[in-house]
Amino acid sequence: MLRDGAFIGKTIIITGGGTGLGRSMGTYLLKLGANLVITSRKLDVLEKTAAEMMQETGGQVLAVACDVRKPLEVEAMVKATLDRFGAVHGLVNNAAGNFISPTERLSPKAFDVIVDIVLKGSYNCTLLLGKHWIEQKQPGTFLNIVTTYAWTGSGYVVPSATAKAGVLAMTRSLAAEWAKYGIRSNAIAPGPFPTEGAWSRLFPEALAEKLDPLQRIPLKRYGEHQELANLAAYLLSDFSAYVNGEVITIDGGEWLYGGGEFNNLDQVPQEMWDVVEQMVRGKKPADGKE
Amino acid sequence: MLRDGAFIGKTIIITGGGTGLGRSMGTYLLKLGANLVITSRKLDVLEKTAAEMMQETGGQVLAVACDVRKPLEVEAMVKATLDRFGAVHGLVNNAAGNFISPTERLSPKAFDVIVDIVLKGSYNCTLLLGKHWIEQKQPGTFLNIVTTYAWTGSGYVVPSATAKAGVLAMTRSLAAEWAKYGIRSNAIAPGPFPTEGAWSRLFPEALAEKLDPLQRIPLKRYGEHQELANLAAYLLSDFSAYVNGEVITIDGGEWLYGGGEFNNLDQVPQEMWDVVEQMVRGKKPADGKE
Amino acid sequence: MLRDGAFIGKTIIITGGGTGLGRSMGTYLLKLGANLVITSRKLDVLEKTAAEMMQETGGQVLAVACDVRKPLEVEAMVKATLDRFGAVHGLVNNAAGNFISPTERLSPKAFDVIVDIVLKGSYNCTLLLGKHWIEQKQPGTFLNIVTTYAWTGSGYVVPSATAKAGVLAMTRSLAAEWAKYGIRSNAIAPGPFPTEGAWSRLFPEALAEKLDPLQRIPLKRYGEHQELANLAAYLLSDFSAYVNGEVITIDGGEWLYGGGEFNNLDQVPQEMWDVVEQMVRGKKPADGKE
Amino acid sequence: MLRDGAFIGKTIIITGGGTGLGRSMGTYLLKLGANLVITSRKLDVLEKTAAEMMQETGGQVLAVACDVRKPLEVEAMVKATLDRFGAVHGLVNNAAGNFISPTERLSPKAFDVIVDIVLKGSYNCTLLLGKHWIEQKQPGTFLNIVTTYAWTGSGYVVPSATAKAGVLAMTRSLAAEWAKYGIRSNAIAPGPFPTEGAWSRLFPEALAEKLDPLQRIPLKRYGEHQELANLAAYLLSDFSAYVNGEVITIDGGEWLYGGGEFNNLDQVPQEMWDVVEQMVRGKKPADGKE
Repeated sequence: MLRDGAFIGKTIIITGGGTGLGRSMGTYLLKLGANLVITSRKLDVLEKTAAEMMQETGGQVLAVACDVRKPLEVEAMVKATLDRFGAVHGLVNNAAGNFISPTERLSPKAFDVIVDIVLKGSYNCTLLLGKHWIEQKQPGTFLNIVTTYAWTGSGYVVPSATAKAGVLAMTRSLAAEWAKYGIRSNAIAPGPFPTEGAWSRLFPEALAEKLDPLQRIPLKRYGEHQELANLAAYLLSDFSAYVNGEVITIDGGEWLYGGGEFNNLDQVPQEMWDVVEQMVRGKKPADGKE
Repeated sequence: MLRDGAFIGKTIIITGGGTGLGRSMGTYLLKLGANLVITSRKLDVLEKTAAEMMQETGGQVLAVACDVRKPLEVEAMVKATLDRFGAVHGLVNNAAGNFISPTERLSPKAFDVIVDIVLKGSYNCTLLLGKHWIEQKQPGTFLNIVTTYAWTGSGYVVPSATAKAGVLAMTRSLAAEWAKYGIRSNAIAPGPFPTEGAWSRLFPEALAEKLDPLQRIPLKRYGEHQELANLAAYLLSDFSAYVNGEVITIDGGEWLYGGGEFNNLDQVPQEMWDVVEQMVRGKKPADGKE
Repeated sequence: MLRDGAFIGKTIIITGGGTGLGRSMGTYLLKLGANLVITSRKLDVLEKTAAEMMQETGGQVLAVACDVRKPLEVEAMVKATLDRFGAVHGLVNNAAGNFISPTERLSPKAFDVIVDIVLKGSYNCTLLLGKHWIEQKQPGTFLNIVTTYAWTGSGYVVPSATAKAGVLAMTRSLAAEWAKYGIRSNAIAPGPFPTEGAWSRLFPEALAEKLDPLQRIPLKRYGEHQELANLAAYLLSDFSAYVNGEVITIDGGEWLYGGGEFNNLDQVPQEMWDVVEQMVRGKKPADGKE
Repeated sequence: MLRDGAFIGKTIIITGGGTGLGRSMGTYLLKLGANLVITSRKLDVLEKTAAEMMQETGGQVLAVACDVRKPLEVEAMVKATLDRFGAVHGLVNNAAGNFISPTERLSPKAFDVIVDIVLKGSYNCTLLLGKHWIEQKQPGTFLNIVTTYAWTGSGYVVPSATAKAGVLAMTRSLAAEWAKYGIRSNAIAPGPFPTEGAWSRLFPEALAEKLDPLQRIPLKRYGEHQELANLAAYLLSDFSAYVNGEVITIDGGEWLYGGGEFNNLDQVPQEMWDVVEQMVRGKKPADGKE
């Protein structure tokens, strides 16, 4: 989407960047000229991915093992980034974890696991990089990957909803507070973008058969990874320099479709509307509350 | 809910107050001691209703024919109210109209009909009463009846969504601007509260059979009119004197249930969760984006 | 506000219930007939408060020391409640902590402290009580005390914003998921309700002199504790039985006033509007984007 | 921002496209290869602008006089577009009007003027083009220009807030309902982007001197027209094909900054924070409500 070379000279860190959507965003940034740092806890997976990404794009990728829950490891990761590329210009808080489960089957410990990765991991990385940018008097951009249930909430993924909502509030808070230092903060709320590993972990076949997730999406298709990558690149670039504190939803209209009271009238066939129209015609709209 | 006599000495106007939810709110206010003014275009219906309400509650009800789309009729209605009761303390903008229809079957004229009743009607009444209160240096309270699709939007009721959203924005705008005059503005967004006339006009039997609206509501029941009346009385009373600019949803959780991405997992039986749990146990949560 | 005896036979737990708004809500529930359980980490303060509350209201108060961050202590607290009163009907997640500080002055550890009390504390209590209600097939009500910056975010209180947003998402998620068990979940977002201890801790005099918080509030006054107590009692009672998943703001209009782009025109004196009006009169509204 | 030629073969209609932000968006689309149709009530202004735009960009611009309040004129405008370019691919509902005034100084008629241009004008154009696309089985994209006070509301611009909120609800409603026809609907909420004519009409010098609008914006600058044009081009292009029902705010963080309760602590100087920090250090966070 963006012009060639739009990210030349820019270094972006993507946590959880070795797989899934993180990898897709990273690959596109590399194609646009960025230097990339990808992190996760599994160095072997990361290094293999980094090699593949470099071969595919010709760009520079640094793989750093980092448990985002541990401030010291985050510190070491940023140091490795600076040693290699000299500066950082953007951070994508993308590392996440999730369970699908009735909430009454979860322990406090299960909540902690998700909240620690998603929420604490995000603020650990954000705090460290923010302080660095402020000290260096260097502008920077945060991009946080959340979900639409960060604001609607959702059953069956309550630890994730809880943690992602925290990340969204952090996004908006720092957009207000740190803008004076030239630091922007934005978020993306992706709808359903299937990724091989994570998606099948989330939706064991038994559930996937039971449900028909496409039915919830007015565009009647899943998102493509490149579509998310386009949006991420826009928000990380200076082309969006006046967008700050915003969460952009890219879900084909899913959450609004579910929330809107009468959208399930999609199930009514055209012939029935003909009948209804005849019945209604001649009747004036109600004067009292509908 | 409220203490007896909570509305003694207070006069409340309810537009569209002769039927449905308007009538239910009015009846409860009468029981609490209010003087009531009900308006609609059909004087005969109104007067019959007023007589019944007075008999049921022992309160005072004034029925005034008024097309809220016409500022002069609104002016006459307020004058009649002042002549009878001396002052007005609250206005419930409740008059409404609605179609259920695929939007591509509607003409601009059909949109106009709904927007004129709902949006223009509401600001005609609000402007007139607001100016009156400001001139008289008298506090007052607006209560506007909107819907959850005022913010989610909804297909098949687009003129109503459009108009109700306008009323909600007016509510919040005047809460900010007119609070300095002691005028509060709030709204209620009711979910499904069946009313005999309007409900069956909206949902011809052909549609009602096709759909199962209860499935969308986590509490698995419709609202009862008294539940709405409780909330309306609270918001019109001084007990809520610090609530201003707020829209309170009373829908059993409907819109959030529809909007939350994984709530339809309610359809998964317990046995399947046992299976899923066994599959998941031992697997750590994904480190990458889910 | 509510009828006498509205809470007779009901037992409500309020975390952080020994001081401030927690105490005010508890006192009102006692007056309405409730049995009350108050918790915090300081047993001596709690017991003194419990004695005073019982003397003032004639109701029953159980004081239980409980660090909400520790699931075992929460378990013991609920057990003590059941031993004393036989059943629990409502939980108010009110315990909280907060710093006012530029975010770049905070460590990850400082974030953890707030997130652990506010977010983990809330889900620890909620999970335990929810499981209890589901097992007992008993209905129950959650009421979570959040803030308006749970959704707007706010600088200078970022750990609190982050944690409260998580609590709000939990509220909405469980409203959807646990309604089928007869469990409702709602929240209140109070604006500025001064409380002696906490308020002065938050706003050292040096800051209070610098700022004029009342300027941000269209009603030009702080909230009174009884106003919050009214709303809390409504949401905990069966009078609000169809309100589920809702967060009710009670802030005098503060957050909307700040957010609305032109509300600071309140500073323009009437005479200047006369001048502006003369200038504008005769000009038609712009046809292009304003 | 976008690759050259991204809009080759696409025809876009921009209402109110002869001036201000409409003109800026149109100019950028022309540079990207689009055919452009601009409309307003003043043909002479439009034709002059069209000539200038063609000279600047080398693109094709059709100027059509059209009062968007009148369905017949909208019909003629679309017909002229089809006659000239053969097809339409996108519509930008940008025509608007606004007053700045205390609401109590406005008549119902003044409300009508704004609501008719902004809201009725938008649904007249949207309905007509939507029906055309559905009949032709052709995909299309709506882009509606709203404001942040469409959801926060705002005093002093209440007719505009009311109308823009309606447009936003229409956007979300049709995103849900018409996605099945391949029609996407999105919106942009621009913050302060000064435009010569409209801005000075809105903010007579007397007011501009009184207020300091930059103070409300965390990035401490106004938006540049090209920044809005970038976003508009993204949303009208297929690069955003999975974004549907979304309103993207581009305001430098303005509305959240105003809404967030503690953001005005920006006024506290660093030295005072040193003092506060010393006072607070050693104190534990409050256990009760903050």
